[in-house]
Amino acid sequence: MTSHFESVVKADIERLIPLIESALLPPVSGGEAPKLREAMRYSLEAGGKRVRPLLCLLTAESLGKPAQSALSCAIAMEYVHTYSLIHDDLPAMDDDDLRRGKPTNHKVYGEGQAILAGDGLLTEAFGILAGDAALSAAQKVETFQILADAAGCRGMVGGQSLDLEGEVLCRSGKPYDRSHLQLIHRLKTGALLRASLELGAIAAGAAQDTRSALREAGAALGLAFQIQDDILDTTSTSDVMGKRVRKDEEKCKITYPKLLGLDGARKALREATERAIFLLQPIPNPASLIAWANILSMRTN
Amino acid sequence: MTSHFESVVKADIERLIPLIESALLPPVSGGEAPKLREAMRYSLEAGGKRVRPLLCLLTAESLGKPAQSALSCAIAMEYVHTYSLIHDDLPAMDDDDLRRGKPTNHKVYGEGQAILAGDGLLTEAFGILAGDAALSAAQKVETFQILADAAGCRGMVGGQSLDLEGEVLCRSGKPYDRSHLQLIHRLKTGALLRASLELGAIAAGAAQDTRSALREAGAALGLAFQIQDDILDTTSTSDVMGKRVRKDEEKCKITYPKLLGLDGARKALREATERAIFLLQPIPNPASLIAWANILSMRTN
Repeated sequence: MTSHFESVVKADIERLIPLIESALLPPVSGGEAPKLREAMRYSLEAGGKRVRPLLCLLTAESLGKPAQSALSCAIAMEYVHTYSLIHDDLPAMDDDDLRRGKPTNHKVYGEGQAILAGDGLLTEAFGILAGDAALSAAQKVETFQILADAAGCRGMVGGQSLDLEGEVLCRSGKPYDRSHLQLIHRLKTGALLRASLELGAIAAGAAQDTRSALREAGAALGLAFQIQDDILDTTSTSDVMGKRVRKDEEKCKITYPKLLGLDGARKALREATERAIFLLQPIPNPASLIAWANILSMRTN
Repeated sequence: MTSHFESVVKADIERLIPLIESALLPPVSGGEAPKLREAMRYSLEAGGKRVRPLLCLLTAESLGKPAQSALSCAIAMEYVHTYSLIHDDLPAMDDDDLRRGKPTNHKVYGEGQAILAGDGLLTEAFGILAGDAALSAAQKVETFQILADAAGCRGMVGGQSLDLEGEVLCRSGKPYDRSHLQLIHRLKTGALLRASLELGAIAAGAAQDTRSALREAGAALGLAFQIQDDILDTTSTSDVMGKRVRKDEEKCKITYPKLLGLDGARKALREATERAIFLLQPIPNPASLIAWANILSMRTN
C-alpha cells in the first residue's frame, strides 16, 4: 500500500528528476582537459537521490514559482554536494571504494584527478550561478553569499574538519557531548540542505520572513537527514546503501546512535522532522515539502 | 646599482604589501572549526610574493582608481592561489614537503585537513567577492564569472589535470609539442594571472576595450611567469626558491627548457614579456605594471 506522502514524492520525482538530469551535464561536457571533465561527469552521473536539487526546486514551487526559475540554483547545489562526496571518499578522508554502488572517483581516475574533479565542481557551482539568465544580479549575489557560507569553513567544510577531529577525540576516549555532535551535523550536512531551501526561496523572490522560516525548516530537515544517515550506517547493509556501512564505528565517528542509543536517535529524528514540518506549515503551498520531510525520515538508503 | 624598474617595484611593494597583509587574514580568524581555520591561515601566512594581489591592485591604480577599490578582488585571488598550492603539494599531486621554505600544509595538518583547507579557501574566495561593499552587484557577478572561468575546469584546474596527464605522456616517451605545452601553461598559471588584471579592471570600472587589452597583457604575463618558473626549476637551488627544485625533471613534466633548450626558453620568456609590455602601453598609467613585467621576467625565486 502506498501512503499519501509516497505518492506525492513519487510524482515529484517523475516530474522533476528529468529536468535536473537534463541540466546537470552540459557545463562539464566538451572543451579542454577532457580527462578532468570525464572525472567530473562520472560522479555527477553516478546518480544518487538528488535530494538537494529536488528540495531547491520544490521550494520555488511551494512559493508559487515554476521549478525552472530555481534550476541553476538546484544544479549548483548538486555540484557542491558531488564535489564534497569525491573529496570525502579520498583515502585521506573517509577512504571509501564504493559510492552509490560504483567505484569512487579516485578508484577510477586516481587521487590527483579526483581532487581536481572536486575542485572543478565546486568552482563550476559558482560559475553556474553567475551565468544564470533567470536571476537578477542582486539575487545572484545573495545566492553567492549563502552558498559560500553553507559550503565553506562556516558550513560544510568546517563540519568535515570537526568530524575528522572528532575521530581523534573519539579514539582518545575523551568524552563528547550532544551539542558538539549537533554542531558537526549542523555544519556538515545541515548547512547544504538549508542552503537548498534558501536558494529556492531567493530564486522565487521570497520575502525575508518566508526565507527565515525556510532557513529554519531547512536546518531541521538537515539535522533529521544526518541522524537518519547515522542510523542507517548502523542498521542497513552495503547492498541497500550502495556504499560501505558500519564505517562510523570503524572510523570511530561520533554519531547519534552511539551517543543516545538507537531508540534515542530515532526519537531525535522524529523531533527534528516534526520541527521541520511545523516550520513549513505557513509556506503558501507546503504539501510537497512536508511529504518529503516525512519520507526522508523513513528512507532506507 | 638599482635599476629604475627595481625602484618602482620596491616602492609598490612597500606601499601595497601592508594593505594586502592586513586584509588577508580576518575572514578566516575565529569562529567554528578552529583547526581548519588554523590550517587555512598557516598557508596564507606562509608569505610568498603576493604577485596576483599586487597585480590586481596595480591594475586598478593604472586606471586611476585607488588600490583599496580592488582590495577584495586582490584577496580573493590570493585565496585561490593559496588553495591551489595546498592541493598541488599533496602526495597525490606534486608530493612536496616544502613550500616557501616551510613544511607544506599536509605535512603540518595531515592530508585530510589540508584538502579541506584548500576547499575552504576556494569557497571563501567567492564569499569575499560576494561580501565586498565596494563593488556593485553587477561588478560582483562579473568577478564571479571571471574567477570561476579562470580557476575551474576551463582554467587552472583544467591545466593541472592536463599537467598530470602530461606526466603520463612524458613517461610513455610519446612526443609532445609546443602548442600542448602552451595550452597547459595558459590554463595552469596564465588563467589566474590574467584574472588578477581583469578583476582589477572590473573593480576600477574599466571599459570593455581596456579590459580586453589587460586580459591579453595578463595572458602574456602569465605565460612569461610560467616559462620563468620552468627555467628556475632547472637553474636555481632549493635555498633560493624555498621549495624543491629539479622536480619537473623528476616528475617527467613537460617544460619550456626541455622542449626548446635553456636558450630557447629564455627567448620565449623575452618574447612573452615584450608582448605583455606592448599590450600595457595604451593603459592610462602603465608604468608600474610595465616595471613589474620586466622584473618578474628577471626574478630569481
